Parts: sequence; C-alpha cells; structure tokens
Amino acid sequence: MERIDKRKYDELRNIKISRNYLKHPQGSVLMEMGETKIICTATVEDKVPPFLKGTDTGWITAEYSMLPGSTIKRKIRDSSKGRIEGRTQEIQRLIGRALRTVVDLKVIGERTIWIDCDVIQADGGTRTASISGAFVALVDALNKLYIEEEIPYIPISGFVSAVSVGIIKDIPVLDLCYQEDYKAEVDMNIVMTDKYEFVEIQGTGEESTFSIDELHSLINLAKKGNEEIILKQKEALGKIGELIGKTEK
Amino acid sequence: MERIDKRKYDELRNIKISRNYLKHPQGSVLMEMGETKIICTATVEDKVPPFLKGTDTGWITAEYSMLPGSTIKRKIRDSSKGRIEGRTQEIQRLIGRALRTVVDLKVIGERTIWIDCDVIQADGGTRTASISGAFVALVDALNKLYIEEEIPYIPISGFVSAVSVGIIKDIPVLDLCYQEDYKAEVDMNIVMTDKYEFVEIQGTGEESTFSIDELHSLINLAKKGNEEIILKQKEALGKIGELIGKTEK
Amino acid sequence: MERIDKRKYDELRNIKISRNYLKHPQGSVLMEMGETKIICTATVEDKVPPFLKGTDTGWITAEYSMLPGSTIKRKIRDSSKGRIEGRTQEIQRLIGRALRTVVDLKVIGERTIWIDCDVIQADGGTRTASISGAFVALVDALNKLYIEEEIPYIPISGFVSAVSVGIIKDIPVLDLCYQEDYKAEVDMNIVMTDKYEFVEIQGTGEESTFSIDELHSLINLAKKGNEEIILKQKEALGKIGELIGKTEK
Amino acid sequence: MERIDKRKYDELRNIKISRNYLKHPQGSVLMEMGETKIICTATVEDKVPPFLKGTDTGWITAEYSMLPGSTIKRKIRDSSKGRIEGRTQEIQRLIGRALRTVVDLKVIGERTIWIDCDVIQADGGTRTASISGAFVALVDALNKLYIEEEIPYIPISGFVSAVSVGIIKDIPVLDLCYQEDYKAEVDMNIVMTDKYEFVEIQGTGEESTFSIDELHSLINLAKKGNEEIILKQKEALGKIGELIGKTEK
Amino acid sequence: MERIDKRKYDELRNIKISRNYLKHPQGSVLMEMGETKIICTATVEDKVPPFLKGTDTGWITAEYSMLPGSTIKRKIRDSSKGRIEGRTQEIQRLIGRALRTVVDLKVIGERTIWIDCDVIQADGGTRTASISGAFVALVDALNKLYIEEEIPYIPISGFVSAVSVGIIKDIPVLDLCYQEDYKAEVDMNIVMTDKYEFVEIQGTGEESTFSIDELHSLINLAKKGNEEIILKQKEALGKIGELIGKTEK
Amino acid sequence: MERIDKRKYDELRNIKISRNYLKHPQGSVLMEMGETKIICTATVEDKVPPFLKGTDTGWITAEYSMLPGSTIKRKIRDSSKGRIEGRTQEIQRLIGRALRTVVDLKVIGERTIWIDCDVIQADGGTRTASISGAFVALVDALNKLYIEEEIPYIPISGFVSAVSVGIIKDIPVLDLCYQEDYKAEVDMNIVMTDKYEFVEIQGTGEESTFSIDELHSLINLAKKGNEEIILKQKEALGKIGELIGKTEK
Repeated sequence: MERIDKRKYDELRNIKISRNYLKHPQGSVLMEMGETKIICTATVEDKVPPFLKGTDTGWITAEYSMLPGSTIKRKIRDSSKGRIEGRTQEIQRLIGRALRTVVDLKVIGERTIWIDCDVIQADGGTRTASISGAFVALVDALNKLYIEEEIPYIPISGFVSAVSVGIIKDIPVLDLCYQEDYKAEVDMNIVMTDKYEFVEIQGTGEESTFSIDELHSLINLAKKGNEEIILKQKEALGKIGELIGKTEK
Repeated sequence: MERIDKRKYDELRNIKISRNYLKHPQGSVLMEMGETKIICTATVEDKVPPFLKGTDTGWITAEYSMLPGSTIKRKIRDSSKGRIEGRTQEIQRLIGRALRTVVDLKVIGERTIWIDCDVIQADGGTRTASISGAFVALVDALNKLYIEEEIPYIPISGFVSAVSVGIIKDIPVLDLCYQEDYKAEVDMNIVMTDKYEFVEIQGTGEESTFSIDELHSLINLAKKGNEEIILKQKEALGKIGELIGKTEK
Repeated sequence: MERIDKRKYDELRNIKISRNYLKHPQGSVLMEMGETKIICTATVEDKVPPFLKGTDTGWITAEYSMLPGSTIKRKIRDSSKGRIEGRTQEIQRLIGRALRTVVDLKVIGERTIWIDCDVIQADGGTRTASISGAFVALVDALNKLYIEEEIPYIPISGFVSAVSVGIIKDIPVLDLCYQEDYKAEVDMNIVMTDKYEFVEIQGTGEESTFSIDELHSLINLAKKGNEEIILKQKEALGKIGELIGKTEK
Repeated sequence: MERIDKRKYDELRNIKISRNYLKHPQGSVLMEMGETKIICTATVEDKVPPFLKGTDTGWITAEYSMLPGSTIKRKIRDSSKGRIEGRTQEIQRLIGRALRTVVDLKVIGERTIWIDCDVIQADGGTRTASISGAFVALVDALNKLYIEEEIPYIPISGFVSAVSVGIIKDIPVLDLCYQEDYKAEVDMNIVMTDKYEFVEIQGTGEESTFSIDELHSLINLAKKGNEEIILKQKEALGKIGELIGKTEK
Repeated sequence: MERIDKRKYDELRNIKISRNYLKHPQGSVLMEMGETKIICTATVEDKVPPFLKGTDTGWITAEYSMLPGSTIKRKIRDSSKGRIEGRTQEIQRLIGRALRTVVDLKVIGERTIWIDCDVIQADGGTRTASISGAFVALVDALNKLYIEEEIPYIPISGFVSAVSVGIIKDIPVLDLCYQEDYKAEVDMNIVMTDKYEFVEIQGTGEESTFSIDELHSLINLAKKGNEEIILKQKEALGKIGELIGKTEK
Repeated sequence: MERIDKRKYDELRNIKISRNYLKHPQGSVLMEMGETKIICTATVEDKVPPFLKGTDTGWITAEYSMLPGSTIKRKIRDSSKGRIEGRTQEIQRLIGRALRTVVDLKVIGERTIWIDCDVIQADGGTRTASISGAFVALVDALNKLYIEEEIPYIPISGFVSAVSVGIIKDIPVLDLCYQEDYKAEVDMNIVMTDKYEFVEIQGTGEESTFSIDELHSLINLAKKGNEEIILKQKEALGKIGELIGKTEK
C-alpha cells in the first residue's frame, strides 16, 4: 500500500507554525499541517467562570469551529443550527483539558485564557493540529502577561502536542489526512508532553476493534510524531520556548 | 491505601442486571454497579436517519441522561438549560459507537434502535455501566425482532462491556466509585469484546499525565474487569446469550 | 361495561409508596399506582428565586418528565426538542401549586424545595400520582430539615393527594388507567386535603361536554379515592406523618 | 365589601364585541370585557398538522400572547426570552380545546383554523375573554368557508363562552378584574355551552383551599355569567348566529 | 399609471394619530397610515443595559412585531419559531437609532425607554409609520417624567418622522402601500427631523439599481412627506409639542 | 485634521484580493482592505430554498461572521449565545441583496450559491469589504459552472463593489478604519455597479443628523472609492472579468 500523498507510514505532513498571525489577540498562530489550516488564538480575559470566583485560580477554556468553506461539502454553521454539535463539544473539551495539564492555573490568577481554534481548511487531524497550534498561541499569551509583569514567570511545565494515528488496511500509519482518516479501521488521537508522558489517549475502532499489539504500534508512531511536532513548536517559539518548564524568574 | 468500600484494587463492585425492567420498550434493563443504577432501554423504530434512507441499513443511536435526584447536588435538567451538555453528548456518542461495533446493521434493515440510558443514581462509572447494561437491552430488543421473524438471526458478533480504571495516589485501581473518580490522577474508560479486543480506549490524565507503564497496568485491570462483567451479562441473558456470535439460524 | 383490569368503578389500583428510594435527595419516593411508576424526589437548595430574595420566605417548585422508555411509543426527550412541551409545563405548575397550598413557606425560610417527578413507566394518572408521591417526598425532606434543627417544626398543615376520575361510556369511574383515559369522554383531576377541601379541580370534556350531575358524581368518586390514597401516605410515613398539621414543637 | 368598580357580586363588566376588526383574517374580533381588550382572529390554512394528514379531518389550534404594553409592568416578549411561558402554553391549550368541543372537525376537511388571541390591554380574565371572543371570530371564519361553498354548513353545534369566578374575602364574585383576581383566595375559570353544559372547569385555591359549598356557589355564578356573554355573542353575530347548531343546509 | 388607491404620486395616505390608546404604558399611540395600523407604546424602566451602568445616561430601545392576523398570509410568531427574524431585528435597530438621535440621553438619567411597535394591520410602510408613531408615544412618556419632576425638561431636540418612497415603473412615488411596495423597483426609507436634516436614509434597488437623478427625486418626495407627517404629530401633541426643542424649564 | 494612518480624505486603504485562497469551495478569496481581512467563499449547492422549488430559478444567500480573535475585545460566538445578532443579520441580508442585483438567477437554475464572509481580522468596513470580496468569489464559482458547461454563460450583468464613507469632525472621508468609524458623526455604506448605479445606500447619522449637502459629498467620495475597488477586482479576475456583462457565449 502506498499513501495518498506518497508519505512513509511514519512520516508527518509538512508543518508550518506562523506566530502573530492576527493583531488583536495576545497569542495567535496559523497552524498548517499539510493542507489542514487552523487559526489558533489565545485571548486573556480578566475574569473566571463562577465556579472559580474567589479562588485565586485561573482557567483555560477552548472553542473550536470549522468555517463553512473549510470542508468538501459546505459545513453548516452551528449558529444556524442553533446548537453546538456533539463532535464540536468533544473537541473543545479535549483541547481545554490538554492545555490545562501543563499550566499552573494558580499562577495565572483570576483570569481566563480563551483558546479559539477556527479551522480554515480541513484535511484530517484538525483536533490534534488545534492542540499543537493552540499550545504555541498560549505560550505567546502567557509570555505577554509575563512581560507586562502580570505574572512572575510563564507557568507552563512542558511542551504539549498531539497527533493522530490509525490503522488502514491493517497497517499502522502516522498523521492521517482526510482521505486516510475516512477509511481507517482504527483512529487514535494521542496528546503527549516533551517528557514522553501521555496527556490523553483516545482510540476508537470506529465501529470495529483492535488488538493489544496494534495499540502498541500506534502508541510508538504517536511518540515519534509528537517528538517531531514539539521540535517545530520549539523552532517557532525560539527564545521564548526556553522559558518553558522554568519556574524561577 | 485502603479503598473507600474496602474492595481490593482489582475488584469490581457488585453487579446486578435486571432484565425486562419496564413493560413498554423491547429491551429494558436495570443495571446496578454498586450504588450506580441506570435504566437502559432499547426501542425499535421503523425508520432511519436521513443519511441512511434507501440503503437497507439500520442504525443504533444512544441518549444518556441523569435524573435530577441522581447526584449529590441536584442535577439541573438539560431541558431547563435548553441545551445538552458537552459531557452528555460525549457519552451518548461513545455508547452508540460501542454498540454499533458488534452489530451488523445491514441485517437490521431500515430500523433505528434507540438506546436510552437514564441514570437513576450516580456513584461513578455511569458511562461504562451504561454500555454494559445497554448491551443486554439491545440483545433483548434484537431477540424480539428475531422471534417475530423480522430478522433472520441476532446480528451481534460478540459481547461488549465497559469498565473504568484509574490511578489514585499512584496505584492503579479497577471500577472507580464517585469518591475515587473524584480524586483520581488518571481516568480511563475501556470498552472491550469477549474476544479481548478493544472497541474504545479513552484515557485522560485529568489535567495531569501518565507513563507508558501506567497505561499497561490500567489496560490489564480493565481486561480483568470486562471479563467479569461479560460473565454477568451472560448469566443475565441465559439461553439468549448463546445466540450471540452465531449467524446461522 | 367491565373495566379493563376488572376493577369496580370506584376502585383504586394498587398503591405502593416506597420511601428513601434514592440515596442523594433529602426525600425520595417510588410511587406506584398500578403500572404507573414515578420517582418523586424533594431536594433542598439554600436559595430562592429572584422574586423572593430578601423576603425570608421559601419556595416549592416542581419539574416533571417522562423517561423515553416510559411510554408505549418512545417519548422524545424535551432536551432533544430544545423546548418543554405545553403539557409538561401545565403539569409542573399544577404539582408546585398543589404542594405549596399546604406548606407555610415563611417557616422554610429562604430555601427552595425542588420537587422532581420522573415517570419511569406510564399507565395513566401520572400527574395525580406525581402529586401524591411528591407529597411524601416533601414530608421527608422537611422532616430532615426539622431533625437538623434548621426549622422549628414541619410546616405542613395537612395531607394532600390527587386522583383522576372520568366518564367512560356515560359511567363515572375512579383512577383511570391509560386505556381508559384514552377513551374517556370526560377527564378530571382533583387534588384534595385530608379535610375534604379542594386544592384544585381540573375537568375537561376532552372536546366534549358534561352536565352538573356528572360533575357531582365525579367529585364524589374523587373524594373516596383521595381518602384512600391519604391513608396509604399515612401508612408509608408512619410516625413522621403524625407531625403533620402540628405547629408546636 | 364593595367591589372596586362598584359592580354587584354577580354582575359582569361591560362587554363589547366588534366583528371584522381587521381586514386580512377570515374572522377577526375586538373583544372588550371592561378594560380587558383582546384582538381575536381566526385564519384558515389549507393543511393540517402531521398527525391528521390523510384523515380528512380538520384542526383548530390557538395561540395567545400579551403585547408588551398590555400590562402594568411592561411584559417581556416570549420571542426575546426565546421560550414560551408555561402560563401562555396552558392558556393556548385551553382555548384550542374549548373551541374544538363544539366543532365537527370532519366537516372542515383537511384545514387548520388558527385562532390568535392577542391581548392589547389586560385587566383580568384574559383567557376567558379570549375564548368568548375567539368563538365569534371562528364563526365568521367558518361562515366564510360556508359562503364560498367550501363546506356544506357551519359545523358548530352550539355557542361557547367562558367566564372567571372567584372568592374574595369569603364572598363568591363573578368576572374578576385584575385587582380582584390578584387578591382572590379561589380562582376558577368555567367554559360552558348555551345548553348549560360544562366544557371545562378549572379551579384552584391559589395555594389555599375551598369547600364543596363554595364550589357550588361559584358554578352558579359562572352559569349566570356565561348565559349573558352568549347573549352578547348572539347579538354580535346576528343572522349568522342562527346558523349555529343547524346541520342541514 | 394610476396609483391603486387613486392618490397622486406625491400624496400621503390618511394619517391618524390617537394618543393615550392604552391605559398602562406612559405613552401609547395608535398610528394609522391608510390601512397600516400600529400600536406604539413607550414604557419607562428604572434601569439601563449593562454597558451604561454607572454612566448617568439613559437608553432608548425598540421592539417591533407583527400580529399573526396583521398580514395577508398569517404571520408565524417569532416566539413559535424560537428566533427573531433578520427583518425584524433590522427594523428594531432602525427605530431605536432614529429616536435616540433627537433625545439627550444624559437628561433621562439611568432609565430605559422601551419603545414597542406592534403592527395590528399591515399595508406597507410599517417601519416608517412605527417611527412616526413611536415618536409621539415617546414624547408622552418623557412629558410624564417631566410633569412628575423626574427630569428638568423634555430633552428632545426636534421632531422625527419617517416615510417610504419608491420607484414604480420608473415613476418616483411617495408613501407606498403594500401592493405598490411589492412591485417597486427601488424602495427607500427616509427618516428626517423638522429641520430638514437626515437621520437615516436606506435605499435599495431591491435587486435592481438606481441612478443619482432618481435618488434626488426620491429625496425630494420624502422631504415633502415628512413635512406633512410632522404637522400631524404636532396637531396630535398640541401644547406638549411646543415643549420640544426647548431646553429651558 | 490628519487621518490616523496619514491617508488623504479621499484615499482608500491598500486593497489585496487573493483568489483561490481555499481548496474546497468553488470560489474563495482573501479580501484585505488595510488591516481588515475577510475570507469570502462561494459554494454551489444543487437545491434551492422552499419558496423557489419548481421555479427553475436559483438563489444567492449570504452568511457573515467574525472570528472570536478578529476584534480588539474577544468576540463571543453566535453559536455560544444561541442566537444570531441583529447586526449580523442586517449584514447578511445586505450582502445577499447586493450580489443578487447583478445576477440573473434564472440562468443559474435550481441552485443556491452560498456566500460566506468570515472576518479574520476587523478594522472597520467589514461589511463593504465582504461585498467587494464576495463578488470575486461569486464570479469564480459561476465561472466554474460555466466551464463545466452547467450554465451557458456567466450570468452577471456588471461588477459590484461597496465602500464606507463618513463624516468626522465635519469632514467627509472615504473608507473609514475602525478608529475613524468609532468617532464618525455620519456613517454611510454605498454599494455600486461599474456603471455608477446605486445598488444600496445606507446612511445613518449614528444618533446625529446630516444635511443634503453632506449627503452629496459622501456620495461623490463613495463613487470615487468604488471605481478604484472595481479596478482591483478586474485586476484580480484578469481574463475571467472580461466575461462579465456578456450574455452571449
């Protein structure tokens, strides 16, 4: 079997992380992973949800959306349907959880960081690319707070990235594009840190099943993929990336 | 460390599966897993969603809800809030996907099986208990179609059950109750078949992380747990359970 | 004419009132009236709706719902439809009004008692059974406040129950089951106290009409029925029931 | 006790029924009952709700609304709140049921008669005045169908009107205005035909109770009131009113 | 070409402005412009929207609605559709903006004036007639505040009225009725003050185009029309109208 | 007075029109007008809204949205609010109307062209830039239908563009950026064709007023601005632009 775009089974698509893509949000990134393109922004708001009021603790929440023109068949807006799809909600919850894992919310104080991932063009892997891109936007936003001396240091304990893996015709492959995703028997999204720890693992047989051996192959592919994505994040962030994982001023 | 209810780390709570709990639905089960109690029903409707019209293929869809009195703090109804929570949607999608994995929807024909899981009392593990109980209700509903000669055999390829595992104070434990779930560092739901295949694996560090070794321990616990739950499902179904996995009349 | 279930015209179905049905709510009852089964809970919340803030007065509000599997044809959830049906709202308002009639809300202080009536299985008379069952749950919840010395006494002036009556083929009958209700020419719900006073009377010709004499026959049947239901409530409550109508400690 | 507006206890307010109030709907009435003013319209639509398709039977459905300027405190629109209030739904259902009682829907064929009752000015008794006014608009709409030879006769078996009665300071009174309604201990709405038959009776102790004797007094008052309202309806309809209750051409 | 109702091209329909049409709101007007009839009310509320809290400034906001019976084909209520139409929102925004132009909101203090325009009968020009009628209701409401010495003077700098103009078969015409509006190639609404200043100009080719010369003709017609409407407003307001534009007590 | 960005009063911002910005929609443009950036797409759907079924006529409908990160203060999504803002609806209706003006919908046949304008970065003039950009995307989409021989020619009668003008400190200026728009006394949006005809003119005194002379100055500025924008559209479209206004193959 050859992959649609000639990639090797364990090869990522081209990654491009463009920082400061928009002028208003504190952090904004155009995340490109092959043909998948997502605007990821991080905006700081000086208040927290009700359940955190008075706790001196911050919050990170994520919203995800696909532009109508991002998909092959025009995507109907959630606002037109009057409700947010189950899939959208699942992804939003995943992005928020993943980013909160590496942030010390106590240090942020009573602020909410809004993460917005708006898919401009979809070609598979939008939820994982959202996490990888949003991480960079989040670093930029927290760095701005740090520069303005609103927080004593950037309270991020490590890099976080995410990648999809899957099994197509019994072969485990890394970073599925839409056409691969569509026919994959098993589909898995793995969120990891730069210390090779799992943040989240979500695997589904897509109405089929998979064995323990297949699980292992997929996890190894994901490890390799995340390693390379984190390298790209580090490149993009340059000096600022070096402040991550450091709690001393 | 001792567990709240004195169980061993790899011990399930008491399981009770009461079939034919309600008189109207084709399949209905009261699923009890310790203090967690869920009414799982399966209802057959003679039509399919628009995307399946004219395909001769059936569908299984699930809805999940918690009664206001099921939780410690009264749960506000989705209908009062005017929207379905993200968590609810995630669970509904999981239940539907899990059950569809083992059913040959072609054999069902243009019918929808509605799975309803209504939590009467919640004490952790409601989504996994929903899957395990709904499976039994589904078998009953399909058996009724089979008896009425609407379908040539029960088109279920194997048993499906689900269980939660987690890490509490660095110790992997099986089948978390609410108080354990609340303080778990890692939380994982694993759906399996009676052939030890994975249907779904969802693990989250709950805003923390976990290592590959911890992943292995959790998977082993889940394997043991699901094995025991499937035994209970078999007991509950008796003779009907023997028709599962048989495609010949 | 013989009744479907062989009952005499003035005979109630079997009543079973199971207290402490759930572990979380302050009061919880499984109310069974023949095949009609309803979980009635009473939960205390330490705040009141905006219109009562600062008035030192409490509130009782009711919500009513039918599980999807409770009816012959699967009932679509209000949350899926995105709105609460007119019928549901009418019933909720009735239950709340009926219970507030016998409670001195001043004594409760700024608390809301949430009454939830969730129909597990419907076979006619769900709104009246909800009132009769919710009353018992309410007593339990207020008794808990009394025991915890949050209120000086149980501020309930008397027992409240409700029953349906109707005219079928010109014959007045007591406590209609679904099949009777369906073909009744006149349908009436009567809420009464143990002092034979009316709390509410709602009679409709169901798109037909009825005479003054028929009205009298129905009222007499309802009186007999409510008398018997209140006896069952007293049995269920035992000693606690004796505290009702007593305002001295 | 003297009534606010000097009326005798058994005296109605001034009634004015202005037909053909608007030019577009088939039937339209300005119903005035003292200071209460309601525009009641009846519009014919050539289709029926899904549950009646193919049955050759018509339907009558009602909508009720209060203009923002109709009440003492500005009434927030249902459309701004995004949902229809429970009270509104209850009234809508009542109006529809009351009118359907006297109409042979088979004769109407597959048409829906939309009844709209829009309260321009509210001073108590809006739901009963809506019924009394809507009846006249309905007659006009059906008469138009009859004149156009769409239906063989006006399929209305009798007049329907409604009135409110109540107990204020232990005295039963007829046709309560807002200030009376506000302080009434018992509030009852009674819908009747010109043959003194009940269509609907809805009485509530408004969180208090009432005896059987009080019930009788109220029913007698309502009988007298409805008799007088029907006289006014007959006056307003003139010749057309004589066609009611006649099934021969 | 002759106009449907024989009017000259530059002739308004009959205008009737009935003040104090309802008893509850501070200002209420029945605005009639030919067959178009609108109830316009102005209600004072002692609070402002969040963005004005603490600014000592008032607000004027408008809501617009058409009764179901106001149009040829029954108009479905916004509340039934669960959302407010784009057209409705556009009109509401226009009315609010137009009235705010001539009011010194600082003088009103932290109050909101709610303008409600409910179309009872529609025959074209409802948005412009709403503005012209609402202006009078607004004057009455502010006059009431002035009389009660809540504000030092009526803070209205001038009269505001609105009229529609259009091009039908290449001829510019004033004040289009529904049938004219329907076939107009160009449709323009012009809001003006009594000093011949524009408040708002909205012209659309209705999916066609128009030249600069046509624009001039339309503006001249609108000028003439508004002049006459303001005369009617002055007649209706009598002495109170003389207080407008005067800032001294 | 000097303009914030040093432009002359009658000078447009830099315009950049990037065609084929996305790979899925038939037409897609990144429209940049200074710092304002909008993704405009045109998608063809092979069905029409109900009111056009069976008429052999097509439709063009527009949706407009701002990304959360596009504005200075994070913009809350319509889908989170559960409703579409009045301003959004007004803009959507304007875009649709403007484009339909120059298209012969009969030639398109029973197809809907969906126009989506998603603002990535907002700096004033988003509604006019949406129209100018969407026009180009529309041409591309119709050209694709023409190339595929689905339609006999590109049924567009002329170029359409839009620009904002306004009065700031009594000076008429062209193409306002956000900071100018914010303080403008008069704000006008003018949509024109390449034949100097008006498609739409919307001018508001923004709660102030303007004279006839000011109106003339603004119109002249808009004429100049639209002329230049259309030149840019022509440049961007190249050869395809020459097919516009030609009805012969």
